[in-house]
Amino acid sequence: MTVAAVLRDALGDIVDVTEDALEAARADSSGHRSPGRPLAVVHARTVAEVQQVMRIATETRTPVVVRGAGTGLAGGANAGPGEIVLSTTQMNRVLEVRQDDLIAVVEPGILNAELNALLAGEGLWWPPDPASRDISTVGGNIATGAGGLLCAKYGVVRDAVLGVDLVLADGRLLHLGHRSVKGVTGLDLTSLVIGSEGTLGVVVGATLKLRRLVEGEICTLTALFPTVRAAAAGSAAVTASGAQPAIMELIDATCLAAVHAHLALPAPDAGTSQLTIQTDGPAAAAEADRIAATLGAVGGRVTLTQDRAEGERLLAIRRAMHGAMAALGTTLIEDVSVPRSALPAMFDEISRIEAAYGLTIPTVAHAGDGNLHPNFIFEGAEVPERIWAAADELFRAAIRLGGTLTGEHGIGMLKSRWLAEELGDDQWELQRQIKAVFDPLGILNQGKVFARA
Amino acid sequence: MTVAAVLRDALGDIVDVTEDALEAARADSSGHRSPGRPLAVVHARTVAEVQQVMRIATETRTPVVVRGAGTGLAGGANAGPGEIVLSTTQMNRVLEVRQDDLIAVVEPGILNAELNALLAGEGLWWPPDPASRDISTVGGNIATGAGGLLCAKYGVVRDAVLGVDLVLADGRLLHLGHRSVKGVTGLDLTSLVIGSEGTLGVVVGATLKLRRLVEGEICTLTALFPTVRAAAAGSAAVTASGAQPAIMELIDATCLAAVHAHLALPAPDAGTSQLTIQTDGPAAAAEADRIAATLGAVGGRVTLTQDRAEGERLLAIRRAMHGAMAALGTTLIEDVSVPRSALPAMFDEISRIEAAYGLTIPTVAHAGDGNLHPNFIFEGAEVPERIWAAADELFRAAIRLGGTLTGEHGIGMLKSRWLAEELGDDQWELQRQIKAVFDPLGILNQGKVFARA
Ligand SMILES: Cc1cc2nc3c(=O)[nH]c(=O)nc-3n(C[C@H](O)[C@H](O)[C@H](O)COP(=O)(O)OP(=O)(O)OC[C@H]3O[C@@H](n4cnc5c(N)ncnc54)[C@H](O)[C@@H]3O)c2cc1C
Ligand SMILES: Cc1cc2nc3c(=O)[nH]c(=O)nc-3n(C[C@H](O)[C@H](O)[C@H](O)COP(=O)(O)OP(=O)(O)OC[C@H]3O[C@@H](n4cnc5c(N)ncnc54)[C@H](O)[C@@H]3O)c2cc1C
Repeated sequence: MTVAAVLRDALGDIVDVTEDALEAARADSSGHRSPGRPLAVVHARTVAEVQQVMRIATETRTPVVVRGAGTGLAGGANAGPGEIVLSTTQMNRVLEVRQDDLIAVVEPGILNAELNALLAGEGLWWPPDPASRDISTVGGNIATGAGGLLCAKYGVVRDAVLGVDLVLADGRLLHLGHRSVKGVTGLDLTSLVIGSEGTLGVVVGATLKLRRLVEGEICTLTALFPTVRAAAAGSAAVTASGAQPAIMELIDATCLAAVHAHLALPAPDAGTSQLTIQTDGPAAAAEADRIAATLGAVGGRVTLTQDRAEGERLLAIRRAMHGAMAALGTTLIEDVSVPRSALPAMFDEISRIEAAYGLTIPTVAHAGDGNLHPNFIFEGAEVPERIWAAADELFRAAIRLGGTLTGEHGIGMLKSRWLAEELGDDQWELQRQIKAVFDPLGILNQGKVFARA
Repeated sequence: MTVAAVLRDALGDIVDVTEDALEAARADSSGHRSPGRPLAVVHARTVAEVQQVMRIATETRTPVVVRGAGTGLAGGANAGPGEIVLSTTQMNRVLEVRQDDLIAVVEPGILNAELNALLAGEGLWWPPDPASRDISTVGGNIATGAGGLLCAKYGVVRDAVLGVDLVLADGRLLHLGHRSVKGVTGLDLTSLVIGSEGTLGVVVGATLKLRRLVEGEICTLTALFPTVRAAAAGSAAVTASGAQPAIMELIDATCLAAVHAHLALPAPDAGTSQLTIQTDGPAAAAEADRIAATLGAVGGRVTLTQDRAEGERLLAIRRAMHGAMAALGTTLIEDVSVPRSALPAMFDEISRIEAAYGLTIPTVAHAGDGNLHPNFIFEGAEVPERIWAAADELFRAAIRLGGTLTGEHGIGMLKSRWLAEELGDDQWELQRQIKAVFDPLGILNQGKVFARA
């Protein structure tokens, strides 16, 4: 009997072998796709079904790729020949919301925005806000350790999860963490699972740390600068001034021009780069005034509004980035992160790489936390080796500046060949051994993260 | 040659075998002590010396206990016959403070308060503030995942560390994490080391996440309640109201009476329990007023001051707790944590256990995050079995309520027999295997955390 037949026997209808489903599971949003179709997509509805899939996979030594919404940008959810795809999108219930404890207990497949719409009705929110919040799952957010626009002030996924239920490769279920906000009992496996990209187990439930919706006004500023370096220096000046914006996004000249074109707005002056900043909370207005003064003093042309709708209009330019880039060609969205003070230096490195490789690398940055998304644009489906060579220089520059390969998107398939470079061989080997403790047969996300090229 | 002689040969003067040093290393602040003296105390001054100690320990199969200031309350730093004590207190330099990146790079042996005194000069602070901040090391704080009074608002150690340098059991040095605030490269080993209580390696350096000193006024409230349950309900009402106090401490009637006696203050009315609350930041005064109203509405007798000195005087009562308890006899300070809404139920459990065992269990709580410190007082140096039996019921009650064995002090020696109870056998075994990846010979903190009774 084939593995697909064994699965179908045990699980019935939720095992999908239609061409469309198999074809869709070959790729995530990175544009990268696997060499062929996986053997089945299982749409699990319950923890027990997840356990059963993993038991069958272990018995038959079949590799498994866990898949949320497939919006990942590192190829982590891509599945190929001989692999089972375990989809969590049908496990999408909110099991509990507690006003008094500021927690929610959820299944992994709920979309981030769906959860937050529900929470908003109770005056609550779960802070992680990837730009993909409308289309990505909470389980995927946890598995990738996602960040977002608000995370400089309100934290990333790592700061917003108290516990995780995890099904191991052999089908056993573990409850990691607890419902109390504090706890140091044993090793912190909840943190270890966050950002583990489906290599340690299947996240089948999570206890999330919520916040109350922030009261008070929201102020939005934009500041235009003649060069990207000046904009980066502006954001560093804001950080150094002690202000804590909720959002601080930087858009370089090429991106700004592309978005304006995409949205049919008048073209900005050549070279113009933009900072978009929001402040919130009880001191929002005072903080916005202070930031405006700081940016003015370093040469920014500042617009400031306390009107929410107008603020959203200003932010829409940043939010249109992905679409604008996609319109230019196939995109490899990079994701390096550096200490905030190193932002200007990192932009210098990008200019240097642009010149050396004859490329334009349009870049946006979550400037409040030093996370840059340089975009490589090319024709066709495969990333050309020349672009990887340029990306290679980009990664090395970020590491040299005290930063890291990936701020929020993860290693997946696309960056596994650089992982040992950053971790060092000893740490790389130690991490691989930890992975083997969870998954001794190595059936979870085979060929990803800890696979050396 | 004895191991002490090998150490002395290799490391000279920093190897201390004086009776006083060996005797002192038998106990931490838990009151518990090991059955006899360790073989040597090594006062490492450099990373290279730490590596050398670990290499010798590995070659000679000698167990090692890493020791910070020895203020731990779980017996984690206690060392006994045949063990090397590796003290980090001489590695106490601050290597770097960055205003622009809000980070500090430090050696592990610096005292928390010393570091913060230095940072305050630059308008910065490292938020973790255990009540032992004047006497405990940053390395110890990291190894235990320490919390403190301010952590409901400003986070625990886990929220305040970006990277850790770790020497493994075999002497190899790993650099975990990075200097950027964001990063999801590989598994999050920095988080795994936080709270690992010296079982995974020696923390020889850390990159800390700083904050700017909070501006604005500080308001302090106390509220007196006729019963501890009423005080617990008061704190739950504050949390439920959406207020975010910087500090919210609960002192039960026995504690309050003991502290008043200890400080020679007039005795409070019988049964009276107290909440002590501070608010800070731009909305401090408004928030304090709202909290006062909330507490008044649930029967609290509220005093409110915006004077800092007067506020410190009110808090001094809470800060005198350890001294007041010590004056009553030997103390086993417990440390369970529950979801905030379960605080009243947990106090009911404590009353039940008091009645069942004929004990008084004076209790304070970091009420803002549901972390309770019930104190068991007894005569002599050994915890009597009857008190362990009562503590056993306490732990089970906390776990039943969705909480955990230890909110901030750790498992160490004193709680290892309950660890598997909370984790479950599968997770306990998995954690033990992870420990073995870091320390295959099991020489680091032997007989602690993962030792079954
Ligand atoms: C337009 C756009 C904007 C984006 N913006 C951001 C951003 O601002 N910040 C950011 O961090 N990311 C961003 N991303 C990337 C992506 O949305 C995130 O990585 C997201 O967290 C992935 O969620 P998903 O449900 O789509 O997961 P998938 O893509 O399905 O999977 C991602 C990885 O997680 C694993 N995984 C998924 N679910 C589970 C589970 N239940 N248990 C175990 N492993 C699991 C998969 O195996 C895979 O390795 C963006 C993507 C797009 C397309
Ligand atoms: C009066 C008093 C009040 C306290 N209040 C609090 C409180 O509010 N919150 C709180 O969390 N704790 C509190 N504690 C407990 C204690 O102070 C903390 O656990 C503190 O973090 C321990 O630091 P230390 O330097 O004394 O470590 P030690 O006691 O020396 O060691 C503690 C553990 O960490 C390990 N360790 C120490 N240094 C390292 C290192 N460099 N590398 C690897 N492992 C290491 C040891 O092996 C041991 O297992 C209090 C203690 C006292 C006496």
